[in-house]
Amino acid sequence: MLEPFKNHILYNLSFLNNARLLIAISGGVDSVVLTHLCYQLGLDISLAHCNFNLRGKESDGDEEFVVQLADNLDIEAFTESFNTEGYASENKMSIQMAARELRYYWFDELAQQLGFDYILTAHHADDNLETFLINFSRGTGLDGLTGIPEVNNKFVRALLPFSRENVIDYAKANNLIWRVDSSNASTKYLRNKLRHEVIPILKEINPSLLQSYQSTINNLGDATDIVEDHLELFFEDAVESIEDNKMTFNVSEFKKQNNPRAYLFETFKDYGFTEWNDALNLLDAQSGKYILSSTHRLIKHQDSLLLSEIVPGELIEITITDSNQEVETPFGILSFSEVDEIQNNSITAIYVDKALLKFPLLIRQWKVGDVFFPFGMKGKKKVSKYFKDEKLSLLDKESTLLLCSEDNIVWVVNRRADNRFRVTEETEEIIKVELK
Amino acid sequence: MLEPFKNHILYNLSFLNNARLLIAISGGVDSVVLTHLCYQLGLDISLAHCNFNLRGKESDGDEEFVVQLADNLDIEAFTESFNTEGYASENKMSIQMAARELRYYWFDELAQQLGFDYILTAHHADDNLETFLINFSRGTGLDGLTGIPEVNNKFVRALLPFSRENVIDYAKANNLIWRVDSSNASTKYLRNKLRHEVIPILKEINPSLLQSYQSTINNLGDATDIVEDHLELFFEDAVESIEDNKMTFNVSEFKKQNNPRAYLFETFKDYGFTEWNDALNLLDAQSGKYILSSTHRLIKHQDSLLLSEIVPGELIEITITDSNQEVETPFGILSFSEVDEIQNNSITAIYVDKALLKFPLLIRQWKVGDVFFPFGMKGKKKVSKYFKDEKLSLLDKESTLLLCSEDNIVWVVNRRADNRFRVTEETEEIIKVELK
Repeated sequence: MLEPFKNHILYNLSFLNNARLLIAISGGVDSVVLTHLCYQLGLDISLAHCNFNLRGKESDGDEEFVVQLADNLDIEAFTESFNTEGYASENKMSIQMAARELRYYWFDELAQQLGFDYILTAHHADDNLETFLINFSRGTGLDGLTGIPEVNNKFVRALLPFSRENVIDYAKANNLIWRVDSSNASTKYLRNKLRHEVIPILKEINPSLLQSYQSTINNLGDATDIVEDHLELFFEDAVESIEDNKMTFNVSEFKKQNNPRAYLFETFKDYGFTEWNDALNLLDAQSGKYILSSTHRLIKHQDSLLLSEIVPGELIEITITDSNQEVETPFGILSFSEVDEIQNNSITAIYVDKALLKFPLLIRQWKVGDVFFPFGMKGKKKVSKYFKDEKLSLLDKESTLLLCSEDNIVWVVNRRADNRFRVTEETEEIIKVELK
Repeated sequence: MLEPFKNHILYNLSFLNNARLLIAISGGVDSVVLTHLCYQLGLDISLAHCNFNLRGKESDGDEEFVVQLADNLDIEAFTESFNTEGYASENKMSIQMAARELRYYWFDELAQQLGFDYILTAHHADDNLETFLINFSRGTGLDGLTGIPEVNNKFVRALLPFSRENVIDYAKANNLIWRVDSSNASTKYLRNKLRHEVIPILKEINPSLLQSYQSTINNLGDATDIVEDHLELFFEDAVESIEDNKMTFNVSEFKKQNNPRAYLFETFKDYGFTEWNDALNLLDAQSGKYILSSTHRLIKHQDSLLLSEIVPGELIEITITDSNQEVETPFGILSFSEVDEIQNNSITAIYVDKALLKFPLLIRQWKVGDVFFPFGMKGKKKVSKYFKDEKLSLLDKESTLLLCSEDNIVWVVNRRADNRFRVTEETEEIIKVELK
């Protein structure tokens, strides 16, 4: 029973043998087996236990169990108590996400401060398979189907090739005791459902499901490697520049692909975007069009796509001193030019009566109480009402600029001009304001 | 109810509107709905029904139902009766595989002979999802997870975006009647299990499972496109030559990749190979080493990999007239050279006493009754026994060459020399025989 486990650590993960290891231990059977295994092999281990305070006395019991275990084995144990519910509600995330974030952050901090080389977690093959099925059910891409990596920076999943059954057999054969988590947290419930109702049926289709799954994720991992090799070549051609928080891509490099959507997905998936057809439309859109994710904006600008981070609550205030100026904004260059007549109207350019502009002008975001006189409409409208009618998201609102003359709005940039500054028969000089 | 179905055909599959269509119809609800839909849209349709004769009277009832339906709609119906069980046992395949092969072959033939532009089948989103789960359970790669394509040459799956529920609602709303297949064939059983026991649980995880699945397979399809784009570039460098049934690849192009196994897999997966670690070892193996699939062999030859088709029962008989000859075999070049002394022994080269060789020699495969005197052993051994002891597969046996002098085996090529021809103290001239 012990042999395959021992051999895996000794030969496949031999880099663990002369390293300082921190074992993430919940007190459940998986992490107790991992601890026992490393201890038997004489590895240099310490334990780290998170008390998430989600199950009252039971949580405290888990902590005591771990401390006692460390004491019995005469090894060091670190414990930390978290206000998981508070952290979750503060950061507007699920309890489960909060626990993960707190846990990984703390492990990483411990490892850095105390000089641990690796952090071992007790994920096994069934965990991996269940994660595959959960990700698949929720909708995913290649990344979501390739499983947890066995080694990922400092984190090592030392039991990954073994099944839950293997782990429990190990625990029984070695007369180990462990803590059983009686909670019915939703993931636990979900994983139990998969474990007891879904996976047994898949095993009817193929009794060696776990091995086949291993070879499937190996194959998918291989495909991922090829995708990455190709993207490396693609980026050499497509990336025009990288500055802090801003990348520029060449639109034509996307357009010349057989499947540009695939390249958009792979290039921008890590920035929170999900609407790939909108991204595809951006390739042929006019300058100034953009799409937003919760963290980034992607703007079409001439023959480029500009990716930039949205700084939450980022305050934009740009002063324009005279009408010969070109001004850079996060969405392109705002330029002013004197023209003889009104040309084609477009959402990216307006024509105004120069005499009515009081320099310096100001570019800023909207604020509560802003009112303007929408071009082509009678009377005034609250900007907030206008946004609501146009069904703008919070992010769209934050990303909309206003061009103001004194306290008056001249242009809701790229959306609507203001009536008051329009060119009339009395206008002597026309100024074209354009976002390029 | 009808609208989404109609719109899908009219707009997304608009190429069907002016084409001659052959509908593959079983008589079940899916194909009856497809027929009704196309009829309602006034498309130019004929029906094709396969009677696989697997369910006696019920099979005949299905056929009558389809003929009657065609009659009611005043359209043409083709039916064909197959001896499916006979075909399956003749070709050593499952009933299910046999039915698929017979069906697709016949549809294709009909379409070609009678000038149909497209063949429509009634696969829907649930079929696709079930196939994903079956492939996943059995173990697969990216290909097995990207679903049935909506359009694949002449075959069009016109209901692919719709769920089984959508299809049944359509049938009920239009008061259609259809045939229910009462069979309990194993795939049917399997699909029922997935449908009733697995998928409902996955839908608990995500109620819009089918939509998420669509976006997952879109994402995976995109990844596949990138993999293919990259392989195109890779093949430009790696393929040295293509002749009939033989391709040569440059080993160093594989070896210079970060993940050579990934490239081996993508390059050779369509030729029946499955042991990718063996393929990986081939990159560094000596000339003459090979791996076999049921249809192909892949041989290391100097700095190349040679892929060639195995002709079943292919008979190899090559005559060697004198010891100055180089002879091409399917596994490399066999060369003879006179040497002064025995150098390093290796499995790809033997040293023999020239005086004992009686030219012309013969290269052939083994036959029943072959006996040789294995080098280093006392006495003789049947070649069949030797193969058994070495645990050779049927294919390995067929791919092993014997070098013979008159009726005596000189060398089980690349495996074992014969004692009788060994170099002794009486030897005057030494010949080195080598497979390069």
